[in-house]
Amino acid sequence: MALEDFKFPTDNLSKTLLFLKEAGNLKSIIRQTFLKNEERFENSGEHSWHLILMAICLQKHANQNINIERVIKMLAVHDLGEVYYGDTFLYAVERSDASGEEKDALLTLIENTPEKLKTEITKLWVEFEASETPEAKYAQSLDRFQPFMEQLDNGGDSWKRHNITHKKALAKNKHISEGSKELWDLYQNLATQAEEKRYFHLEKEDS
Amino acid sequence: MALEDFKFPTDNLSKTLLFLKEAGNLKSIIRQTFLKNEERFENSGEHSWHLILMAICLQKHANQNINIERVIKMLAVHDLGEVYYGDTFLYAVERSDASGEEKDALLTLIENTPEKLKTEITKLWVEFEASETPEAKYAQSLDRFQPFMEQLDNGGDSWKRHNITHKKALAKNKHISEGSKELWDLYQNLATQAEEKRYFHLEKEDS
Repeated sequence: MALEDFKFPTDNLSKTLLFLKEAGNLKSIIRQTFLKNEERFENSGEHSWHLILMAICLQKHANQNINIERVIKMLAVHDLGEVYYGDTFLYAVERSDASGEEKDALLTLIENTPEKLKTEITKLWVEFEASETPEAKYAQSLDRFQPFMEQLDNGGDSWKRHNITHKKALAKNKHISEGSKELWDLYQNLATQAEEKRYFHLEKEDS
Repeated sequence: MALEDFKFPTDNLSKTLLFLKEAGNLKSIIRQTFLKNEERFENSGEHSWHLILMAICLQKHANQNINIERVIKMLAVHDLGEVYYGDTFLYAVERSDASGEEKDALLTLIENTPEKLKTEITKLWVEFEASETPEAKYAQSLDRFQPFMEQLDNGGDSWKRHNITHKKALAKNKHISEGSKELWDLYQNLATQAEEKRYFHLEKEDS
């Protein structure tokens, strides 16, 4: 009793649908973001939707004129490598090596899709990772700001669990300013308030 | 310890972000679709992401040339009324009345957003619901096909729980053909196989 029991035609439509079903497993990839209202950790599927909605609603706060269609498409595919590779926490030490393996995982996931689609998805994913175009920079800034709002709501859950200080959070997220200076100004304002509320891990006095 | 403890500026950026945080509760709205791999029911946030990814990847299978940006935006907001209203099952008797109340719920959710954004979201939501433009028809066909794939994978879980026969499923979903004839042909093919496997509720012989 499974999708594999069905006979799909061997055309491009079916190939694409079978990939899309597999891609849906992104709903099982659990992130470090604790959703207070939901009383559980966020998954990468719903995270991707939330970023897309943010991209649409915050477009005028991007630094530059952007092609919103490409931003949204990037956000829709930016985590697909996780289906086979899993999520890497922003602050993880091994994160700098993750991109290559995540790309391999992406290529495995899309290997049976039609050539044109394969090229499109790969290009979007690479553009997001490279973070050089205005669209990618804006998308990346949303990818950082969305979990930040959840941390403000849940009392800094992942900052405390992973010993993230105020200073470290600012250093790791300052490139939000490359996508949206307005978002980065607000980030700093709210992070100062969070520090006063002791949401961050506290730095040792002698360090 | 909550987002409400923070002082946000009273500008449009903050108003929009506070709406976006609230909209994120779509991740708590549980649908009737059982995700076999995840061993749980799907929520409307991750469902929205999955539809967006499908829209991007299946664009060439739409009946008409479509503006993909508008399709994606519609899909990103199409379930927002559920944040305060909840999900209505496709086959529910009261579904025909649901749209008005869901629209009221949407308007409540977006009431503090900047005027221009409020207008944009409402227009997208209304266009999707009306299902008259090629973009809305395509988006609607995906909204029907995505849960169908999950039913094939989970043995017809919600068909069995809600006494949905093969005949009823075809009648309720035939407007998939208005968005994509190719998808509708495949739906019928796979639904016939599902009927042979007894995934649907069985009609009584004397009815």
